[in-house]
Amino acid sequence: MSKKKKFPRESFVSMTELVLPNDTNTLNNLMGGRLMHWMDIVSAISAQKHSNRIVVTASVDNISFKHPIQLGNVVTLKAKVTRAFNSSMEVRIDVEAEDVPSSKRTESNSAYFTFVAVDQSGRPIDVPEIEPETEEEKSLYDGALRRRQLRLILANRMNPQDAKELKSIFDIKETQN
Amino acid sequence: MSKKKKFPRESFVSMTELVLPNDTNTLNNLMGGRLMHWMDIVSAISAQKHSNRIVVTASVDNISFKHPIQLGNVVTLKAKVTRAFNSSMEVRIDVEAEDVPSSKRTESNSAYFTFVAVDQSGRPIDVPEIEPETEEEKSLYDGALRRRQLRLILANRMNPQDAKELKSIFDIKETQN
Amino acid sequence: MSKKKKFPRESFVSMTELVLPNDTNTLNNLMGGRLMHWMDIVSAISAQKHSNRIVVTASVDNISFKHPIQLGNVVTLKAKVTRAFNSSMEVRIDVEAEDVPSSKRTESNSAYFTFVAVDQSGRPIDVPEIEPETEEEKSLYDGALRRRQLRLILANRMNPQDAKELKSIFDIKETQN
Amino acid sequence: MSKKKKFPRESFVSMTELVLPNDTNTLNNLMGGRLMHWMDIVSAISAQKHSNRIVVTASVDNISFKHPIQLGNVVTLKAKVTRAFNSSMEVRIDVEAEDVPSSKRTESNSAYFTFVAVDQSGRPIDVPEIEPETEEEKSLYDGALRRRQLRLILANRMNPQDAKELKSIFDIKETQN
Amino acid sequence: MSKKKKFPRESFVSMTELVLPNDTNTLNNLMGGRLMHWMDIVSAISAQKHSNRIVVTASVDNISFKHPIQLGNVVTLKAKVTRAFNSSMEVRIDVEAEDVPSSKRTESNSAYFTFVAVDQSGRPIDVPEIEPETEEEKSLYDGALRRRQLRLILANRMNPQDAKELKSIFDIKETQN
Amino acid sequence: MSKKKKFPRESFVSMTELVLPNDTNTLNNLMGGRLMHWMDIVSAISAQKHSNRIVVTASVDNISFKHPIQLGNVVTLKAKVTRAFNSSMEVRIDVEAEDVPSSKRTESNSAYFTFVAVDQSGRPIDVPEIEPETEEEKSLYDGALRRRQLRLILANRMNPQDAKELKSIFDIKETQN
Repeated sequence: MSKKKKFPRESFVSMTELVLPNDTNTLNNLMGGRLMHWMDIVSAISAQKHSNRIVVTASVDNISFKHPIQLGNVVTLKAKVTRAFNSSMEVRIDVEAEDVPSSKRTESNSAYFTFVAVDQSGRPIDVPEIEPETEEEKSLYDGALRRRQLRLILANRMNPQDAKELKSIFDIKETQN
Repeated sequence: MSKKKKFPRESFVSMTELVLPNDTNTLNNLMGGRLMHWMDIVSAISAQKHSNRIVVTASVDNISFKHPIQLGNVVTLKAKVTRAFNSSMEVRIDVEAEDVPSSKRTESNSAYFTFVAVDQSGRPIDVPEIEPETEEEKSLYDGALRRRQLRLILANRMNPQDAKELKSIFDIKETQN
Repeated sequence: MSKKKKFPRESFVSMTELVLPNDTNTLNNLMGGRLMHWMDIVSAISAQKHSNRIVVTASVDNISFKHPIQLGNVVTLKAKVTRAFNSSMEVRIDVEAEDVPSSKRTESNSAYFTFVAVDQSGRPIDVPEIEPETEEEKSLYDGALRRRQLRLILANRMNPQDAKELKSIFDIKETQN
Repeated sequence: MSKKKKFPRESFVSMTELVLPNDTNTLNNLMGGRLMHWMDIVSAISAQKHSNRIVVTASVDNISFKHPIQLGNVVTLKAKVTRAFNSSMEVRIDVEAEDVPSSKRTESNSAYFTFVAVDQSGRPIDVPEIEPETEEEKSLYDGALRRRQLRLILANRMNPQDAKELKSIFDIKETQN
Repeated sequence: MSKKKKFPRESFVSMTELVLPNDTNTLNNLMGGRLMHWMDIVSAISAQKHSNRIVVTASVDNISFKHPIQLGNVVTLKAKVTRAFNSSMEVRIDVEAEDVPSSKRTESNSAYFTFVAVDQSGRPIDVPEIEPETEEEKSLYDGALRRRQLRLILANRMNPQDAKELKSIFDIKETQN
Repeated sequence: MSKKKKFPRESFVSMTELVLPNDTNTLNNLMGGRLMHWMDIVSAISAQKHSNRIVVTASVDNISFKHPIQLGNVVTLKAKVTRAFNSSMEVRIDVEAEDVPSSKRTESNSAYFTFVAVDQSGRPIDVPEIEPETEEEKSLYDGALRRRQLRLILANRMNPQDAKELKSIFDIKETQN
């Protein structure tokens, strides 16, 4: 199964949620934890679609919450697998909120979740590779390598010296000085 | 208010949750999104305790989920503010799961959430500084600067060249080779 | 505002839900009431998108549940306004379930919900008309009149004799005999 | 088992729910989908009582929502089987809402849900017949036949020409013209 | 308003709940806390019906849970005000569980909750007195005095010496020895 | 296993909850039933920690709710086993609420829940005894006997004449008069 390739669009999932009272804090804004809960569900479904396997969340990359999302807003989450590494898949999630009656949209947010495909006894199992089609998909595919190195360093599973792609961010600009 | 200092222990919060069926995936393991929802609540309460203000989630650092947590497990989350920067606070959360009847513990997990204190109209407002007491608190206080640089770079709000503390991770080891 | 026309695709909404334990009966099948709850949310958002107004559920047409949907399945609901009548809008919802790991799909289900657009004090307010584009949209637009007559008769608000479009179903075939 | 008869009152179920914040829309009115969720639960219990079997929702007849139900209201749902057909049962649900402190009642709503009794492997199984006692029960028992024909036509499982009882609604009045 | 009298049956409320997965512990039995949550809702509605006021839970008497209630069971809770004291009301709740498919009933449980009627600013306000009609209602009405003394003693608001009705339970039997 | 002794602190559990909209009544105060639900969870975990067994709620002692807890408050529940009797354990729960931004605390509440440790088939099984350490723990350990007698009397499982420890509350003061 591992050699088969799939396109990012084959794992595309769109999810819509309505912000209800219990999802908000005392300022009537969506709580960050509730949004991450939704991000996890939509990206897990995306990783399932790519792998046709049960998947477990392996890691979440740094997420920043720029603009408050209000009670009653409609939140749309879109997820797509950007790249696969053996049994793991990186999924990008884009979030957008809208106050539908006024058509006012809250600027979008994005995040990367990583999943591992497992068999019935929970052991990792290889997944198809990703074949990016559009320019944006190719750019996400390339960036996935750098993000993966950062993840491994932050989890103390890679020596920063070995993160060639990631280091280049610092080095290249250094020589420019 | 901004010049007052508070100790990390003043913002310590402990939260206990029982993993219920709706929190789990088809392997009967706690879903990552549900755990992040709990992390957000416990760390928001911790940031509220430090600032005595309403707080909003500003960002979440990279989290990795190493060990599955089972249905019926008791999850303990402990949070404490590590450092404050003007109106923002970094909170460290430590997670531990236990199958109480068998006393089997799942290895702990940890995460960093950042909150901004706001007034009633949602505008940022300064918070007390942190005065670390123990060795561990001092180490977390120092590391907070590096983590903050990484956060700003990842949010495209800092040039990697200006992240001196963070760069040292790569540079120092390079000269060691 | 009432004379402006909008296309069905402008009110298109897609929603994805994961069937969790609390959504199921003792056979581990999704309860019909939970599915209708989701149908109501997705179609209310669709009607909001068409009208840019707060909307309230006015009626639900006959729904039949043919095939059980299993615990752990991914349910996709797609909604689109088919036709508007003054302040009311008919929304068609199509439902599909998939056991993603096995790629097994449960045959789709469909339903019609009707919403009324209201202002802040809850009074009905006119909405844009619908301009169908595709063949399928035109067919749904035409059928909306018959379904509306049936709705009015069932709510005792129309005399069956006045339901010309609906009666034709019975009459035409009668002459064919 | 199929020849045994039971009275409608043997399947009577009354359910009371309090309208909580998460059940309401931005006008603080109960969402239609939440009400249908409750209707499904109360009528499923009623069908279980009649059949002493596990039951699955087969269909829901046209429901109209006339009057908004407010946050904090007490909603009372009453269900009773009206008639059984082999393995299927029609249940009528009557809904009433009350603002208890002010004793203000919202006009009642009603609906018909149909359930199929199944065995442990999900196969349909015959249920007792209904023996109506009161005048109202007899009228509901008779009407069940017409509603069933409409359901079968709407599900494309009956030719409108064969729906004698239903057609009479149109025909009788036609001759009166 | 305080001199008006009402009958216990005027505050009768019946509530039906289905035991769902999230309501159960790892033995698939209903958790005691979930049952108390339902008891609180049904008895609060009963106290609201008696007083036509907003009510707040003042106290809960000793409850014992004798028989486990299973996942999938139908739980019926019946509540009725037994006696009123100025602004407070004692409500008795009777609980019964049934595995409907097998018609197996779990022996009933009962509890007493006390509520205080309050006005919009939360201040206690007098409620109608209770006029018991049946023998059982009279017995509950009489017992309410003893239960109230026990409640006051346990809350350190009455000296045990002053609890004449309650003391008689100990004294009378003592002289019988 | 039954002869082993454990200290109260070994079963200490602290739980923190945020009061959300769905937890409150129309006065925006935490509903008593929701608080009891949390009390049950925290004390069940405490009893599990003491016994390393699955536990079921056996009874709840009289609880009084003195001070309303507001929406948005942080509720802290602390539980500890006070004494064990064969297979049953009494747990004391202390509750405290705080409006964190204003540092305003709501006076604490307390309760006693009793649990029975069971094996996988639900049969009672002996648990370790309690060895109280502090003065407060010793006082709670002594009081547990009186509370147990009251529980048994109220459940009609003990003759009031046999409740020597409990009777002394009435008798001693009687002789003092």
